[in-house]
Amino acid sequence: MTLSGGSRPGSRVVAADHVSLRRNNLSVVLRHVRELGPRSRARIAADTGLNKATVSSLVAELVERGLLREGMADSTRALGRPGQLVELDGSGVCGVGAEINVDYLAVTALDLAGDTVSERRVPIDVAHLDPSTTLDRLAELIHEAVAAVDARNGQLAGVTLAVPGLVQGHTGELKLAPNLGWSQVPVIREMRRRLGDPSYPLHVDNEANLAALAAYSEMHKVEPVQDIVLLTGAVGVGGGVVSNGHLLRGGHGYSGEVGHMPVAPDGRVCGCGRTGCWETVVGLTALLHKATDEDDPVRDPSLDVEQRLAEITARAEAGEPRTLTALSEVGNWLGIGGAILVNVLNPDVLVLGGYFAVLGPWLQEPLEAAIRDRVIAPDGGGCRVVRSELGFTAAVRGGAQISLDQVFVDPTLIGREEAGVAQ
Amino acid sequence: MTLSGGSRPGSRVVAADHVSLRRNNLSVVLRHVRELGPRSRARIAADTGLNKATVSSLVAELVERGLLREGMADSTRALGRPGQLVELDGSGVCGVGAEINVDYLAVTALDLAGDTVSERRVPIDVAHLDPSTTLDRLAELIHEAVAAVDARNGQLAGVTLAVPGLVQGHTGELKLAPNLGWSQVPVIREMRRRLGDPSYPLHVDNEANLAALAAYSEMHKVEPVQDIVLLTGAVGVGGGVVSNGHLLRGGHGYSGEVGHMPVAPDGRVCGCGRTGCWETVVGLTALLHKATDEDDPVRDPSLDVEQRLAEITARAEAGEPRTLTALSEVGNWLGIGGAILVNVLNPDVLVLGGYFAVLGPWLQEPLEAAIRDRVIAPDGGGCRVVRSELGFTAAVRGGAQISLDQVFVDPTLIGREEAGVAQ
Repeated sequence: MTLSGGSRPGSRVVAADHVSLRRNNLSVVLRHVRELGPRSRARIAADTGLNKATVSSLVAELVERGLLREGMADSTRALGRPGQLVELDGSGVCGVGAEINVDYLAVTALDLAGDTVSERRVPIDVAHLDPSTTLDRLAELIHEAVAAVDARNGQLAGVTLAVPGLVQGHTGELKLAPNLGWSQVPVIREMRRRLGDPSYPLHVDNEANLAALAAYSEMHKVEPVQDIVLLTGAVGVGGGVVSNGHLLRGGHGYSGEVGHMPVAPDGRVCGCGRTGCWETVVGLTALLHKATDEDDPVRDPSLDVEQRLAEITARAEAGEPRTLTALSEVGNWLGIGGAILVNVLNPDVLVLGGYFAVLGPWLQEPLEAAIRDRVIAPDGGGCRVVRSELGFTAAVRGGAQISLDQVFVDPTLIGREEAGVAQ
Repeated sequence: MTLSGGSRPGSRVVAADHVSLRRNNLSVVLRHVRELGPRSRARIAADTGLNKATVSSLVAELVERGLLREGMADSTRALGRPGQLVELDGSGVCGVGAEINVDYLAVTALDLAGDTVSERRVPIDVAHLDPSTTLDRLAELIHEAVAAVDARNGQLAGVTLAVPGLVQGHTGELKLAPNLGWSQVPVIREMRRRLGDPSYPLHVDNEANLAALAAYSEMHKVEPVQDIVLLTGAVGVGGGVVSNGHLLRGGHGYSGEVGHMPVAPDGRVCGCGRTGCWETVVGLTALLHKATDEDDPVRDPSLDVEQRLAEITARAEAGEPRTLTALSEVGNWLGIGGAILVNVLNPDVLVLGGYFAVLGPWLQEPLEAAIRDRVIAPDGGGCRVVRSELGFTAAVRGGAQISLDQVFVDPTLIGREEAGVAQ
């Protein structure tokens, strides 16, 4: 129901003045071109309802700020002199995402158009290092990414850290990350010091939240989905929820802890100390316990996870019965927990990330069957299951994007006269 | 993290022109007075950032539309001549909520200030009647409420139907309501015909969604919560989720089906035909099976549910062991499913509605213990458990409110010159 869907009984009361109106309209034009592609000023005016003179002035300012640029002549125009298309520029405006995970560090810089400016991924055994050493190494990788942005005279919109745990965003503290063995680490304070107290914004967020934003952003380019749930499959299992186009964070920012839903009351003990968490029946460790013997090298956590998954894939392709049985069981449990999420959240799409995406060809059928069986709404609530194509870069891409998104909300954050100087 | 919480990569692009600016500012002033109470024009200007001349013009228009009225002199003013306070009027603007549930029909009309204009609740055994007869009776009750609005020369902002099932809002169809025994009933089309094709808006929504909106609205008057989950406990168990101040609907409007989360794989068969749904361990039937013998009159569905709950309450107060054991077991199961919802959604508040509220004094302790045990975030994610005070009127109040909310979004929906005539 459109009517009640838009009803916001408690939403904040905000009055518009002429400064915020201008800023809003700059944002409208910039986002319009991002979402719908190159177009003429006249077309922007017609699409947005703004008048042509206003659009010309807004476009001129966005060009000065390096966010739009003149494109080709408008070939769709039948009469009169051809208009000029304007298109997204932003090649000089970058955001950085930096991830700490159980067995790797990763850093990616994207420009405003979503193109990759730099990308690094380094294997590391975080659980066996002290947090300080890990943060030192991540700071080095961030320095490299910032240098790559500087090298193209770019402006840095911000850096967002991705961590696999409970984050208190307003203090920048990582409260708990069971699979890293970290608790109450003030990651933003520590990282700010290591980066030399930089002037760009620095934030921290849950990796599954950021991966969900990245997946949402990719999907939204192709189709108008508004509601997705992303599952990150590794030793730990995380979830990110995008609801009506917005990341669902919850009252204290602790939402999406799907790995610890109690679904198997008689199940195994979890890394968090509890019994029967979903993670204990669908996490990578659960799969390996079912599929392999104790001395099987694919259980060795010091090997790269992608190599180990390639071996499992090879066995499944060869029809090895124990592997196939294990994948089928995990797929069924994935569907039981998935059905909970679909009953509660009714997403358009359930996105499989991490190892779930890699082994998706064997997980997906039992998963979908369990969802069809278990979801009360007809046809599984209309929810599709898809495998993410972002692999293990989803969280860093989401981190870079969330920093860049601020520029789309307020284009005046980016300086007007020369790159690198914000006004 | 404030920054990323406000990030909306896919939100719709909307430009502001001067007509929409005026409408927006009328809405700002009206909602400001609703939320913060009577105040002077000067205070509204200071609070909202609008200039005083604009506020005077906006207030004048809202007074003409019967939405604000002049109040007392402003006694807080120390210097100069005393200003006049303006306050919410809207006594002539009403919304109606009308509910079909398993054992009752209910209709409530509220005015814009939230005061009750009319209220009816009628016992009925819906599952043993055909939908047509039930809709006939509900139409009679709606006619009575509309007559009560007409009797005070009121304007009707709209009527919202509340149903315990899966609703397709844009077609007005009730897809499935297992506990009513209804499927694919075009309730809006049927009701519109019975009401004589009225000019006011008519919508249908899930009763737990509407109850959640009503509970959120009550709470939001007292404290700035933004995230709540409401559970409606009856024979069926429903859920409504308010996330960041907005009702969470999901991709197809089927969210909140918490009663069918598969949490007890070895459990009983549910009304939906599946095994182990949460409803089968926390619904009213589950409690009665645990607490009573087959021939116990409190199991008799033809008796009023409030009488039966009063009897259970009396037994619990008397310390009857079987009743207390049953309540403790249900409370524990309530906490296991509640922990799933808190892990996934991280609400500020979990609100117990329906029978959960009535028997809350015995359910709450085991429920809270299970949540503390089962939620990975520290201190149960900071989620409080409270009992709704709205009783069985929550859904109809929510339905009336959702109709009235449109007036706060666009005050020009209400006519300017005389009550009853929208311009």
